[in-house]
Amino acid sequence: MKYFAKIAFVGRDFAGFQYQPAVRTVQGELTRAMSALFGSPTAVTGCSRTDAGVHAREFCVTLDNPNATIPPERLPMAAAQFLPQDISLFYAKKCADDFHPRYSAWGKEYIYRIWNAPARDPFLAGLAWHIPRPISDEALAHMQEAAAHFIGKRDCRALMASHSSVTDTVRQIRTLRVAREGDTVTVTVSADGFLYHMVRIIVGTLLDVAFGKLSPADIPAILAAGDRSAAGPTAPPDGLYLNRVFYEDPRTAESECDKVPTASAGCN
Amino acid sequence: MKYFAKIAFVGRDFAGFQYQPAVRTVQGELTRAMSALFGSPTAVTGCSRTDAGVHAREFCVTLDNPNATIPPERLPMAAAQFLPQDISLFYAKKCADDFHPRYSAWGKEYIYRIWNAPARDPFLAGLAWHIPRPISDEALAHMQEAAAHFIGKRDCRALMASHSSVTDTVRQIRTLRVAREGDTVTVTVSADGFLYHMVRIIVGTLLDVAFGKLSPADIPAILAAGDRSAAGPTAPPDGLYLNRVFYEDPRTAESECDKVPTASAGCN
Repeated sequence: MKYFAKIAFVGRDFAGFQYQPAVRTVQGELTRAMSALFGSPTAVTGCSRTDAGVHAREFCVTLDNPNATIPPERLPMAAAQFLPQDISLFYAKKCADDFHPRYSAWGKEYIYRIWNAPARDPFLAGLAWHIPRPISDEALAHMQEAAAHFIGKRDCRALMASHSSVTDTVRQIRTLRVAREGDTVTVTVSADGFLYHMVRIIVGTLLDVAFGKLSPADIPAILAAGDRSAAGPTAPPDGLYLNRVFYEDPRTAESECDKVPTASAGCN
Repeated sequence: MKYFAKIAFVGRDFAGFQYQPAVRTVQGELTRAMSALFGSPTAVTGCSRTDAGVHAREFCVTLDNPNATIPPERLPMAAAQFLPQDISLFYAKKCADDFHPRYSAWGKEYIYRIWNAPARDPFLAGLAWHIPRPISDEALAHMQEAAAHFIGKRDCRALMASHSSVTDTVRQIRTLRVAREGDTVTVTVSADGFLYHMVRIIVGTLLDVAFGKLSPADIPAILAAGDRSAAGPTAPPDGLYLNRVFYEDPRTAESECDKVPTASAGCN
């Protein structure tokens, strides 16, 4: 059977999603666990490559094994026995053979979490970017003003890590929100796809706006110039969470994996 | 100077607060860090002994070193350089010589966190008790009904680990609340003091009520009999958080450490 499944993972102790020999990866652990559960080699395909230290509240995979017969609704409970503590498989359904969790995705949503208080919070070690310097209400308003300039379909070359070799750099940023709740500032961004380090560069740029190194009005020119060095620094991976993957395309209302529930996992 | 300080810590990788040779303890790490910061041996005294794996959002200590001159308001920033990621010192003030963080405490509040969903949440590994079996609304109401029977001043011998040698087992439970938010069930309990494993035995007993092994009406008899074996099992340490320590005694309005702010740290 080929399964579509949703997993959540804490990225802290992983060298990213994608399998690499000799280091601990999510794909490596998942392949090992599911092959042990099904009793034979299982192909694990992911919806994205995440960097070392990046987390997921909802990450979508396919698990392909012709010998697998466990009913999808029993898979979460069965998988729990084989998975390490920092990965959870919380949803599964049967999937069409030609479904691909990456190419079939219509878009993704990331959340970036900033802990904005003088002292570290030990419960957020590796799970948020600690910025001790206060972000004032005015600074937050500037971040929000700057965020609005990112929205739309445009060349996002300025927001891509300079060593990336991707050539098609046009992306549609659908939403980009900056919000504060208590001592936490959250940046939520959804797009049809993301370039390498794109969310982390957006967050670094928004922080430059917060602290006056850039003004909100600078953003259009930075994007237009396509110059990575004009944007802000790359925020650390700690605060980054893949939050949702969208498969249901409202333009066609056709999807192999519509009606899947939203993530229930996550530290809220 | 003698400082009063508030710390938060993730208990996962500690063998409890109290110093023990050859294992990692909060007191051991704090003593090492503060002695390094002040440049000479520093006496660290805590408000309580917490068990291995138990967390604190607010734990109070005194730091006593006659050579220490760092202004208290600068201590959080200075201490951060010397403390490990899983301990944060987030508040400090100067303290009277005769103040004792344990004997001066008027009471404490603990929170116990239960993750009540079919799948594990990897972000809560070691940070909550995972109970996959659903706690229905009726079961929650039974837990709340049972909780009310614990409140008051009484002999709590039935709620003490059987190997404890404490003889004065009378405690005043001031509040005991059971609440649900999403997939999390939280038990909040405050008392003038706690016996060994008392909160974890209360939580285990409330879960026995939830799943029908005990009825709410059984609680008064269990307490009256003083028999540990009649109460429920000891819940695991993972879900337990020291949440607040009370020093201001409203009966006398005298305190060395009143007007201290409430904890700002914590994973909410």
